[in-house]
Amino acid sequence: MVAVSGFPEFLPAGRLVELRALDILRAQFELHGFANIATRSLEPLAELSRKGEITKEIYAVRRLHADEGTADEWGLHFDLTVPFARYVLDNAGRLSFPFRRYQIQPAWRGERPQQGRYREFWQADIDIVGDGQLAFHHDIEVALVMLEACARLREEFGIPEVLMRVNNRKLIEGFYSGLGVTQPLPVIQIVDKLPKIGAAGVSAILQESGLDAAQVDRILQFAAIDTPDFAGRIRALGATNDLLEQGIAETEQLLAGLTTRFPHNVVVDCKIARGLDYYTGSVFELELVGWEALGTISAGGRYDSLATAGQHTYPGVGISFGVTRVFAPLISGGRLTGSRPVPSVVLVAVDSEPDRGRADAVALALRQRGIACEVSPTADKYGKQIRFADRRGIPYVWFGGLAGEVKDIRSGEQFPATADTWAPVDGAVRINRLDAADVVK
Amino acid sequence: MVAVSGFPEFLPAGRLVELRALDILRAQFELHGFANIATRSLEPLAELSRKGEITKEIYAVRRLHADEGTADEWGLHFDLTVPFARYVLDNAGRLSFPFRRYQIQPAWRGERPQQGRYREFWQADIDIVGDGQLAFHHDIEVALVMLEACARLREEFGIPEVLMRVNNRKLIEGFYSGLGVTQPLPVIQIVDKLPKIGAAGVSAILQESGLDAAQVDRILQFAAIDTPDFAGRIRALGATNDLLEQGIAETEQLLAGLTTRFPHNVVVDCKIARGLDYYTGSVFELELVGWEALGTISAGGRYDSLATAGQHTYPGVGISFGVTRVFAPLISGGRLTGSRPVPSVVLVAVDSEPDRGRADAVALALRQRGIACEVSPTADKYGKQIRFADRRGIPYVWFGGLAGEVKDIRSGEQFPATADTWAPVDGAVRINRLDAADVVK
Repeated sequence: MVAVSGFPEFLPAGRLVELRALDILRAQFELHGFANIATRSLEPLAELSRKGEITKEIYAVRRLHADEGTADEWGLHFDLTVPFARYVLDNAGRLSFPFRRYQIQPAWRGERPQQGRYREFWQADIDIVGDGQLAFHHDIEVALVMLEACARLREEFGIPEVLMRVNNRKLIEGFYSGLGVTQPLPVIQIVDKLPKIGAAGVSAILQESGLDAAQVDRILQFAAIDTPDFAGRIRALGATNDLLEQGIAETEQLLAGLTTRFPHNVVVDCKIARGLDYYTGSVFELELVGWEALGTISAGGRYDSLATAGQHTYPGVGISFGVTRVFAPLISGGRLTGSRPVPSVVLVAVDSEPDRGRADAVALALRQRGIACEVSPTADKYGKQIRFADRRGIPYVWFGGLAGEVKDIRSGEQFPATADTWAPVDGAVRINRLDAADVVK
Repeated sequence: MVAVSGFPEFLPAGRLVELRALDILRAQFELHGFANIATRSLEPLAELSRKGEITKEIYAVRRLHADEGTADEWGLHFDLTVPFARYVLDNAGRLSFPFRRYQIQPAWRGERPQQGRYREFWQADIDIVGDGQLAFHHDIEVALVMLEACARLREEFGIPEVLMRVNNRKLIEGFYSGLGVTQPLPVIQIVDKLPKIGAAGVSAILQESGLDAAQVDRILQFAAIDTPDFAGRIRALGATNDLLEQGIAETEQLLAGLTTRFPHNVVVDCKIARGLDYYTGSVFELELVGWEALGTISAGGRYDSLATAGQHTYPGVGISFGVTRVFAPLISGGRLTGSRPVPSVVLVAVDSEPDRGRADAVALALRQRGIACEVSPTADKYGKQIRFADRRGIPYVWFGGLAGEVKDIRSGEQFPATADTWAPVDGAVRINRLDAADVVK
């Protein structure tokens, strides 16, 4: 594949894998009653730029022949959350709350390309948003829907088991505040770099930012806490207050709700915070077991205010799945592929150009019964037409008219068939599953 | 709908219509053996700008924090043909020719918005491309596939009948050259404006460009020719040559091939040329009968060279359908809509918050059997939960556990049911068909 770095494109047999993944996610989300929306690709730059950390990654868009000196007004969305918040405000009076929506679209980030980073990538998001309030059980719900979707993708493609790390911003902020940290958000953003820069690096930055050694020590101890008995271990660090206790209670409830269905796929991890400033409760971060180098493949959390307008506040909880991050390397590397590059199950052979109409009539009859087919582009000798089908992986070749004969290229068998009753056996395009050796790589 | 002009967005019940249309087009194209591809949204500006007329409509894209003075390098594609040509060159060695592909993606044009013009819009394209050569019967084929797709959309939504106008660039260029016109392309582009500026306007511009009155008169007479007996009427104008005869022969063959299946939907129209410079044979232009004000909803044609690389030339024939142009006004105007805004067939009622797990178990069992459902967000009184379902158009409410009772809100009937055997009756989301009064508008 000739590729522009960061903009993955696939051959037809690879695109089938991506389409299948998108179809599975759509079906899963709809089974749970999520309604689809699609938002425009462009948002006002002012809206996109509000999240400070991400500004530099935005693709700005302007009319090529706009007047000189005209400021950029638009940018391509870099996620589906900003557009969704705007959509909820635009349409609040016409939506029924809690509003459950899924959205499967590309997003763009103008970053310098590097391994595993994409500049155009598909995201699949679900969110549940309330008007004024939203019950906690929806936190459990969106996490379960995503765990179920990952299980379904694993079943289909053989990708590894998922591990969901959960935490809670109330728990983190309660703990920090119990330690006397007055500005928890910058501390959260520094601790979030733990996997990248290590404990020594985080410790140095935290001390530079004015925390004392004892505080930093506790923060690092806290960040190392995971299941089991996370609550006991946190309390043993001595910082207690209502917010912390509320965070512990929510996390226990979340963990209980998730492990009932997925006992081996969920852990508490106190270092998980998600850097974004809008999370206010549960946070989720998912990776594929054994494929940790791929990074976070899905993430999300609870926010008390997706958007506000006058008296109205819209709290929500959501989670996003990185379709391109998971599947692009598997497709580009040829590890997942469709069994053939065309949907056709049958090639209808053509005896001679004047007889093409007869082949067209067969194809029409087959299609009316839902059987994908194409008519041979040439009236070459049968052997050549059979080889043409074989090269494309088309399993059947039809000879003659509506009452004709059909050859199964796989077995070599040929038998009489009529176009209004014959049905192919095992004719669908298949996608391979990864084998165990692939998965432990 | 709060809308930014030219960027249509829909409420969930409207988005269902768009999704259904996209699904139908996908299914139709696959039935005919077309393979799906998706190309990146961005192309190099240099590639996009090669088509002179369209330059001003391109959206240029650059990293927001690119260095000052950095030239724009990228633009959003304005159609799916330029990216497809580039894709064929990138992957020529890995594709099997004739390559039949469909592509359903948004495209962008940075134009000043006006009624019926979109700045972000979905296109659905099919093309068949050969390596070095491509038989003429594929011209008939792509036109038939599109006529069939339009018939299927009409069947589903009740949109009007389609009228396909066909012509042939060989016929036009042959005729012009027979008249002594040495540069046919600019003349074609002027005559293409006939519907907009009328015969007098075209006549004036043609005379300014150096044609004499007799030539202009013949050109306007030619442009007025349509079926039946287009060949006789063209020949009666006195310009004859091989290219013209070849164009007449191809057009007759095309017309015969199309009218066998669609006797009332195809006419020859000598004023149709499609302004783009790459067409070299058949050209197609479709409108909806009675909805001519909507403009061209689908168009395409034959090109001798989609792309060239060294010794290789890739001739092709393709046709594009304007999904947004047809459906956005119908959805935004509320004339087509889903029967409810959510996929859920069942709302599972919750007796009390501690009992939510029982409702979750029912929902899980139903979903495992493919029945979309959601669990009530609250444990309100049953009456309130039923009203919640009713407001969303969810037809069924489930009470109790796996062996419980289900109420059909539409009939008011309630009966015992078990979650591993019960099936909804007529539970799918429906989309209305336009009624006759709508269609003649």
